Amino acid sequence: MIDDELKERIKSIVGEKNFTDNTIDLLSYSQDGSEAEGTADAIAWVTTTEQVSELMKLANEKRFIVVPRGAATGLSGGAVASQGLIMDFSRMNRILEIDTENLTATVEPGVVLADLNNELAKRGTGLFFPPMPASDSVAQMGGSISENAGGVRAVKYGVMSDWVLGLEMVLPTGEVIQEGGKTRKNVSGYNLIGMISGSEGTLGVITKATVGLTPIPETQLSALAYFNTTENAGKFIFRLFKSGLNPSAGEILDANTLQSVSNYTGMTFPECGAMILVEIDGDKEDVQRRLKGLEELFKEFKDAGYLLEYKLAWDPVENFELWQARKSALPSMTQIKPTVIIEDTTVPLDKIPVLLKSMEQLAKKYNLLIPCYGHIGDGNIHPNFLCDPRDPDEFARAHEAIKEMGATVLGLGGTVTGEHGVGTEKKMFMLAEHGQNKINLWERIKQAFDPNRILNPGKIFD
Amino acid sequence: MIDDELKERIKSIVGEKNFTDNTIDLLSYSQDGSEAEGTADAIAWVTTTEQVSELMKLANEKRFIVVPRGAATGLSGGAVASQGLIMDFSRMNRILEIDTENLTATVEPGVVLADLNNELAKRGTGLFFPPMPASDSVAQMGGSISENAGGVRAVKYGVMSDWVLGLEMVLPTGEVIQEGGKTRKNVSGYNLIGMISGSEGTLGVITKATVGLTPIPETQLSALAYFNTTENAGKFIFRLFKSGLNPSAGEILDANTLQSVSNYTGMTFPECGAMILVEIDGDKEDVQRRLKGLEELFKEFKDAGYLLEYKLAWDPVENFELWQARKSALPSMTQIKPTVIIEDTTVPLDKIPVLLKSMEQLAKKYNLLIPCYGHIGDGNIHPNFLCDPRDPDEFARAHEAIKEMGATVLGLGGTVTGEHGVGTEKKMFMLAEHGQNKINLWERIKQAFDPNRILNPGKIFD
Repeated sequence: MIDDELKERIKSIVGEKNFTDNTIDLLSYSQDGSEAEGTADAIAWVTTTEQVSELMKLANEKRFIVVPRGAATGLSGGAVASQGLIMDFSRMNRILEIDTENLTATVEPGVVLADLNNELAKRGTGLFFPPMPASDSVAQMGGSISENAGGVRAVKYGVMSDWVLGLEMVLPTGEVIQEGGKTRKNVSGYNLIGMISGSEGTLGVITKATVGLTPIPETQLSALAYFNTTENAGKFIFRLFKSGLNPSAGEILDANTLQSVSNYTGMTFPECGAMILVEIDGDKEDVQRRLKGLEELFKEFKDAGYLLEYKLAWDPVENFELWQARKSALPSMTQIKPTVIIEDTTVPLDKIPVLLKSMEQLAKKYNLLIPCYGHIGDGNIHPNFLCDPRDPDEFARAHEAIKEMGATVLGLGGTVTGEHGVGTEKKMFMLAEHGQNKINLWERIKQAFDPNRILNPGKIFD
Repeated sequence: MIDDELKERIKSIVGEKNFTDNTIDLLSYSQDGSEAEGTADAIAWVTTTEQVSELMKLANEKRFIVVPRGAATGLSGGAVASQGLIMDFSRMNRILEIDTENLTATVEPGVVLADLNNELAKRGTGLFFPPMPASDSVAQMGGSISENAGGVRAVKYGVMSDWVLGLEMVLPTGEVIQEGGKTRKNVSGYNLIGMISGSEGTLGVITKATVGLTPIPETQLSALAYFNTTENAGKFIFRLFKSGLNPSAGEILDANTLQSVSNYTGMTFPECGAMILVEIDGDKEDVQRRLKGLEELFKEFKDAGYLLEYKLAWDPVENFELWQARKSALPSMTQIKPTVIIEDTTVPLDKIPVLLKSMEQLAKKYNLLIPCYGHIGDGNIHPNFLCDPRDPDEFARAHEAIKEMGATVLGLGGTVTGEHGVGTEKKMFMLAEHGQNKINLWERIKQAFDPNRILNPGKIFD
């Protein structure tokens, strides 16, 4: 609980205009992109590392909880606070440096991912920052690193942590730590960047990041194909990644998702098991050549009777068209039911068809709609549990089905989260996925960073 | 100290034939690839995870030190034990599975890196494991992950940790932990793989690893160029990485290294500031096309008067030839002086010329030979301090010069180790590089894993 005296001390650190404990403000900060909900005692918008350090020292001394928050686009409750202080980074959002000689950018945590890429384009650098979670038009750097966000391009370009070269962070006890810098490799001491990335704001508060940039590919072209069964789509996935065609995105939409998109957009699709969309980027000449290679692979699958139809985009306009079904997938579902619980199952590549099949069976068993789409190169499939909270029976069935989904995924050698994080929403699976020995180790690690459990406690594990 | 009773208990765990405390054996295990030296009390060759777990439990109970050891090709003393038990992995060396559908291999820690690639080739999988430290013909997986080894291909393919999908490890207290698996992405809980990779065997003992594989590129071709000054070589580095030519290796040899190679092999080189060697891999057609792009860039630098000569390898035979100078660099130096202290400085890309220049000045100041070569894409330059331990004055000057090198590198925003690790040999730089707050945090992390400080203590920090 943050009492009035503490509130005054917080105000004296961040300034009057960067503080609120107004009920409406607190309510509007009570959610993220998941079902999680909670109301903090106050919100502080920080603007400097010193403020973050001062606040953490105060919190550590007075034992109040601090929950760092970016744009709160997270899908697992990581940025939701049920007490204490929300530390908001949206006003600490300067691009501090773009260094074209070292192919790096140094940013404050509140910088929006797309804003960095827009600035890189505006300055004509010819460089870009590749990680592209679906929320990149609002998601902030600090939050995206803390959640180790992925996205459609992860198959070629990796996830956030693959691009973080340096971090400044404030420990829960207030010390400021510098880690890495502009060097491309670094094995000096324990790899704290690897540990902090994806730790969901439970170990330290990121106050600055230096990230790598890479030349913008000359072009992107895509192709899509409809497979008669998910099994045959699975066979294609294996061949695609062994082919060396090196796609920059590989997406799958199951039949239920296509149905949902069709209802929403009026687009029509052949009756099929699944659609696969593949993007290739690089130099124009090279992309054309690889797209032809992909066409050959499609033809082979068509001749075998596995593939029903395919389309190739030979120019940017056609390319844009091909992506419309994928981009409409999530919005289309919100038209069917008010609540879409987006799960984040990730399995070995060869288990994608089994996973899709078991989601179909789960939908039947629980009388639910569970359309699935996701990233085939990572085995990262998002089953979407559609339900209406005003229908308590359906709502309960959805949550029962999610539990069963967890057991299924772990049985396939997978994880319940490939890119969305654990937060509060996936904590229930942690014991089964990791075992008590590992959770005990996590607790000791948390203790090493945060002896008084004041920084975003209760996330990932209790 | 391991007394006779403990030795009997160790023997009962690993078997008589997997144990020795013979003085000659201990002496032959007293070094790695660095100057570090130390003699353990005994050596145990482990062959199963259970044995590792039993030994760690015993060590934790009886408080004796355990030092895990692979092929001990490390260059910073990480595998050298000055007391306690050496836990040797060379007999725990089975390739447990090659999974071509998921593009993964699961191996025991003693598997030699090149053996995995040979087996992948023998089975005709069309896949390979990219990380290629210079010692890959003997270096083992466990050691290479623990040191997070790099190598010439890191610029395109990354380092060991970029390829580790799953680990089985034994904690210093004996518990067996499973981390990750065959999934390509995973944000479930703290990223222990990121933390264990590069922790130099101080946090846990790796007993199994699942690593990613990727399709073998159809071909590799290379090109080399001689630049009049290191500054102009530096200008080329920047242009190369902004060009999008995406080299699979980029190496630099300074004038002193070329002189050393020339003395050793009889090869002749133009008088120059530095030689740069660039490798491009991929499909034949694409590689030829990109090699032409590289030629254009060379021509531009030649026209500007920055580049003296260049050579392009248009087929594998020519390619092999182009690499001979680079491959002879280290062997050539051992002909000049009996001791070659290989340093591992890593700086932002634009600081490579400054670093090379300051190594030249250092060589003059201390009357030493310090030829430099390294990986331009990572800013990872290896200054080689040549000296003769039988000349105490020279030996002392070399060590003084190394201290000054450390300060220089940190002043350039770099690190003293990009791929070789800290071990015992670079501990002296840790306070200056990381500060006391971070070292205190490392201590608390070490405590979380190893409360009794029995697993490879005294490495990285005291």
